[in-house]
Amino acid sequence: MLKYEKVANQIELFIKENDLNQGDKLPILDDLTEEFKVSKSTIIKALDILEIKGLIYQVRGSGIFVRKSHRSGYINLSGGDGFRKDLEGFKLDSKVISLEQMVPPKKVALGLKLEDNEEVYHLKRLRIIEGAPLCLEESYFSKKHVIYLNNEIVQGSVFDYLRDDLKIEFGFTDIYLRIVDLSKKEAELMGLKEGDAALLSESMYHLHNGEPFNYSILKYHKDQAQFFVPTSRY
Amino acid sequence: MLKYEKVANQIELFIKENDLNQGDKLPILDDLTEEFKVSKSTIIKALDILEIKGLIYQVRGSGIFVRKSHRSGYINLSGGDGFRKDLEGFKLDSKVISLEQMVPPKKVALGLKLEDNEEVYHLKRLRIIEGAPLCLEESYFSKKHVIYLNNEIVQGSVFDYLRDDLKIEFGFTDIYLRIVDLSKKEAELMGLKEGDAALLSESMYHLHNGEPFNYSILKYHKDQAQFFVPTSRY
Repeated sequence: MLKYEKVANQIELFIKENDLNQGDKLPILDDLTEEFKVSKSTIIKALDILEIKGLIYQVRGSGIFVRKSHRSGYINLSGGDGFRKDLEGFKLDSKVISLEQMVPPKKVALGLKLEDNEEVYHLKRLRIIEGAPLCLEESYFSKKHVIYLNNEIVQGSVFDYLRDDLKIEFGFTDIYLRIVDLSKKEAELMGLKEGDAALLSESMYHLHNGEPFNYSILKYHKDQAQFFVPTSRY
Repeated sequence: MLKYEKVANQIELFIKENDLNQGDKLPILDDLTEEFKVSKSTIIKALDILEIKGLIYQVRGSGIFVRKSHRSGYINLSGGDGFRKDLEGFKLDSKVISLEQMVPPKKVALGLKLEDNEEVYHLKRLRIIEGAPLCLEESYFSKKHVIYLNNEIVQGSVFDYLRDDLKIEFGFTDIYLRIVDLSKKEAELMGLKEGDAALLSESMYHLHNGEPFNYSILKYHKDQAQFFVPTSRY
């Protein structure tokens, strides 16, 4: 983790520990520099991260202010590394439907920039929140980057494993959303009716160098999933 | 518009005019500084804006690269100032259902931080894309900030009017998404059936100084609306 990322985490903790609310003012730049014993440019970069994450806003000539933390249970789509962190405090489980190695459909291979016949890990899971179905997940992991997966790993957080064990550095993510109808089989897995609506999220995850490594299709239960998108002023 | 915002727009134009694709490299920092005749810090700030907007990604020690422009017809939820720009090239119309001045429901008054009995403009519109219903919109504008609205203005882009005529400087936006069922009346307006699913987006728009000025509830037609969320690595 880079120094400014650490400082950003520390400021985030400071906001939480002091129970600061929307509109509360943070210490001025000089005081933050003093407090965290880092350079001004490190603090500025840390504040930029917190602004992107939707935790603060900066007003020119006036100061740095806390942005309201979003409602509990909402999945923050700007996170880009799964929804585990947003659903802290909720009991999350996975029911693995299948994990196999395969040559993916052409569309997926193109998206992941794979050579002909290059294989992926193909994972299907039902994600469960507080005992109720949250979403159906279908993920394709490029084996070039995700060199190993097994049934035990995919019971838990795949993203924690990628970050902590495979040392994968996440980059940007493109997320597409639309409403779809559930098939009979999908509906059965979710405890819903055939043709019921689901929110489909289609994500391409990239490494920090821009290479795609994971393509995921999630179908969210219409009554269980709610989303939050904090946007900044650009 | 600030200097780095202008430069960001110029770089965006440069990417479009040169038809650059995902992964294409932009000129190095020194060359951009030379090209646009501004300071290095202005270029860095401009690049940060473009990264937030999902147009580029930066790789430490390696360069600045173009990020794929999203699919046509998708509404970019990170934009924060309406969807007109995303749907350029599509024919957009509005059918105004009502525009009135009123004391809003308590929840809205609280969200907009209004005093007791403070009035808002309350606008209901059907937004139409290429002749088909795109969404039902219900917006509350704080009269403290949006000092004047009339039927002619709300036929067009309210956000263009706020920016260009009222000189409102937009800040951050909180967007909440979930799936809801349409009422009989809503379904009729959208050409759908009672109980059909809609994507509900609930947004609180803030000024650059953090004051809320507009609360909007949009219900999107399930077959017409598709969304894009570009996220960065934090």
